[in-house]
Amino acid sequence: MTLKTVTLKTAQTTLAEGVTELGIGHPSPWLLPLRELESAAAHRFAQGDASFLQYGTELGDGFLLTELAQFLSREYALPVPTGELMISGGISQALDLCCAALSQPGDTILVEDPTYFLSLNIFRDHGLKVVPVPVGDHGMNLDALEALVRQHRPRLVYTIPTHQNPTGTTMPQAQRTRLAELAQQHDFFVLADEVYHLLTFTGTPPHSFAAHVNTGKVLSLGSFSKILAPGSRLGWIHAAPELLSCLIANGMIASGGGFSPLGGALIRSMFELDLLPGYIQGLRDTFRGRAAALGDALDELRSLGIRFQRPSGGYFIWVTLPDGVDSVVLLDRAVANGVRYQPGPKFSPDGGQRGQLRLCFAYYAEDDLRGGVQQLGQALQETLREG
Amino acid sequence: MTLKTVTLKTAQTTLAEGVTELGIGHPSPWLLPLRELESAAAHRFAQGDASFLQYGTELGDGFLLTELAQFLSREYALPVPTGELMISGGISQALDLCCAALSQPGDTILVEDPTYFLSLNIFRDHGLKVVPVPVGDHGMNLDALEALVRQHRPRLVYTIPTHQNPTGTTMPQAQRTRLAELAQQHDFFVLADEVYHLLTFTGTPPHSFAAHVNTGKVLSLGSFSKILAPGSRLGWIHAAPELLSCLIANGMIASGGGFSPLGGALIRSMFELDLLPGYIQGLRDTFRGRAAALGDALDELRSLGIRFQRPSGGYFIWVTLPDGVDSVVLLDRAVANGVRYQPGPKFSPDGGQRGQLRLCFAYYAEDDLRGGVQQLGQALQETLREG
Repeated sequence: MTLKTVTLKTAQTTLAEGVTELGIGHPSPWLLPLRELESAAAHRFAQGDASFLQYGTELGDGFLLTELAQFLSREYALPVPTGELMISGGISQALDLCCAALSQPGDTILVEDPTYFLSLNIFRDHGLKVVPVPVGDHGMNLDALEALVRQHRPRLVYTIPTHQNPTGTTMPQAQRTRLAELAQQHDFFVLADEVYHLLTFTGTPPHSFAAHVNTGKVLSLGSFSKILAPGSRLGWIHAAPELLSCLIANGMIASGGGFSPLGGALIRSMFELDLLPGYIQGLRDTFRGRAAALGDALDELRSLGIRFQRPSGGYFIWVTLPDGVDSVVLLDRAVANGVRYQPGPKFSPDGGQRGQLRLCFAYYAEDDLRGGVQQLGQALQETLREG
Repeated sequence: MTLKTVTLKTAQTTLAEGVTELGIGHPSPWLLPLRELESAAAHRFAQGDASFLQYGTELGDGFLLTELAQFLSREYALPVPTGELMISGGISQALDLCCAALSQPGDTILVEDPTYFLSLNIFRDHGLKVVPVPVGDHGMNLDALEALVRQHRPRLVYTIPTHQNPTGTTMPQAQRTRLAELAQQHDFFVLADEVYHLLTFTGTPPHSFAAHVNTGKVLSLGSFSKILAPGSRLGWIHAAPELLSCLIANGMIASGGGFSPLGGALIRSMFELDLLPGYIQGLRDTFRGRAAALGDALDELRSLGIRFQRPSGGYFIWVTLPDGVDSVVLLDRAVANGVRYQPGPKFSPDGGQRGQLRLCFAYYAEDDLRGGVQQLGQALQETLREG
């Protein structure tokens, strides 16, 4: 690909005209906290302290880390010590850093199948061998995992334990404990991508993997992308201090300092003004309503043979199509009917999951979600009629 | 190292009490553009457009790139097309990305000796073999480079062509052209770290390596750290569009989007409000005065046998000590006298440069610089008396 022209575009989101893009995993632009961050910026600049414009400490601003530790301790109902946290450049950057620090090219990483598709190229950039582990109704299948661990002796295991992308499934408490124990027994690191944990809108999820950080084999990765703003490109890594020392022994961090002190300073003010909890609660309320609307609309398609679980948080519903319907083949007809989704094979390290597709309820309002499902239903009916 | 306690600290800068830290390569905190960025933030949030809080386009905000292209075209007196620019996370991140995209572990990179010491670990993180090239009064010695190129067949050559760190030397125009030609003949990439180019306070420097980007073998790396704020962790890569496509074919960028859209949005407003040129001119005036003060103070030590060149820009003066004085040994006595500097071996890939040291004039005001040189003179006199 050669970039000959430049589009005057700020956001990564690309929408085709006349198509409801239920494949997009981004939040609605109108949900983004413009006014909250405007207040935070005004507060931060009003302090008269320019130190957040200087090269930042490697782990991130100590004041921000202290606020974050208090926030996570409350949200997780677990003690999260400040000394176990560092600021990252979001989950993607955290995964990149963990691969660089904790693995060598040629090492094996076990990942859920299906999993967050864009993580796979990060692992491949580091020369890792990616081995899939099946996902069931309760997240990663740990019997399968244990067999694969014995076979492949992985260095890393990547999981999205809560409201998984793309399946929306959540790993129960007992499985989390077992995974942490397996990591100790078989000497691998668990990279727990907990990006949706704080977006639980129904009930209470099992404990975050923060509960297992003290084993020294578990890293809990969080992000401000999903609870504040993707454009901040900031998140955190919660890990044993020895592991944090290892992560910041990195040429780029030693040279440039910590990640985006400027952005971090605005988030510090979000905490100091106590604006974050209310903002997140608003997101949960919005997403609860949307997930219900999407679920209700999809219920109407059950008579066509689709199956799905209603999620209790996160961004996604994972739909299993009627037997014999291929999500890649169906996509053209769906687009012709005015709706797009992410076909299952996109999330599978070896191109499986052809009978599945992912719908996102984070971008569109309830009416648009209902409209999109109706169009999907039409595409499905046309396919079944011809089938 | 284990991190048991957390220091409530925002900036990376560490000052020991009672010591003038002439080793620090950071700008004075009171020079940082707190008020300018406060105006920029107010302007940006007032637009009512939240798209900079969304996942950002991989190359960076198109509006910011357009402003940057116009700014660089004016500053460089060369046409810089928008389509040849991408936003980076600063020079360190840009070097990391270039190594990841353009080299393989085991490849060779040629670097100046002495060079920016913190770059060396970035290259080593990527498994590169680092080979030093001597630096003379006019930057990298290109005869030596050419011989080393034939011997080592490098994949990359790293240079700081203007107001080099640490020597303050500037590569003349003819050598720049020759280096770009060598890159074409011998098929290596030039990573030109031009971080100090726009901080020229006396005269006009030769053309930026931007002039050679069209060869497809030269990448000109710039940074907002030195002309605005290190805490923004933002810079740019100016390269042929084919190379930019190659750089953004990176798992982390595809997943997370471009670097810090939030920080970039404030810089976009700095441009739109035309605040940057005046701010940079202020820096140039300040650093011109400080470089003169430091040079005048150092002139007083010439009678002790030191030698140095006065720089025409940048942050540093490189001092050659009298014969037989070792900068590593001298450091203890300097600290005892109340001043610290960076000893020469720190900048040398193989620990040479023992007769040299680096002083920085970006952090301290003129009086402090004079005081520090006086203390350095005392330490030197004590050493020579005992010698």
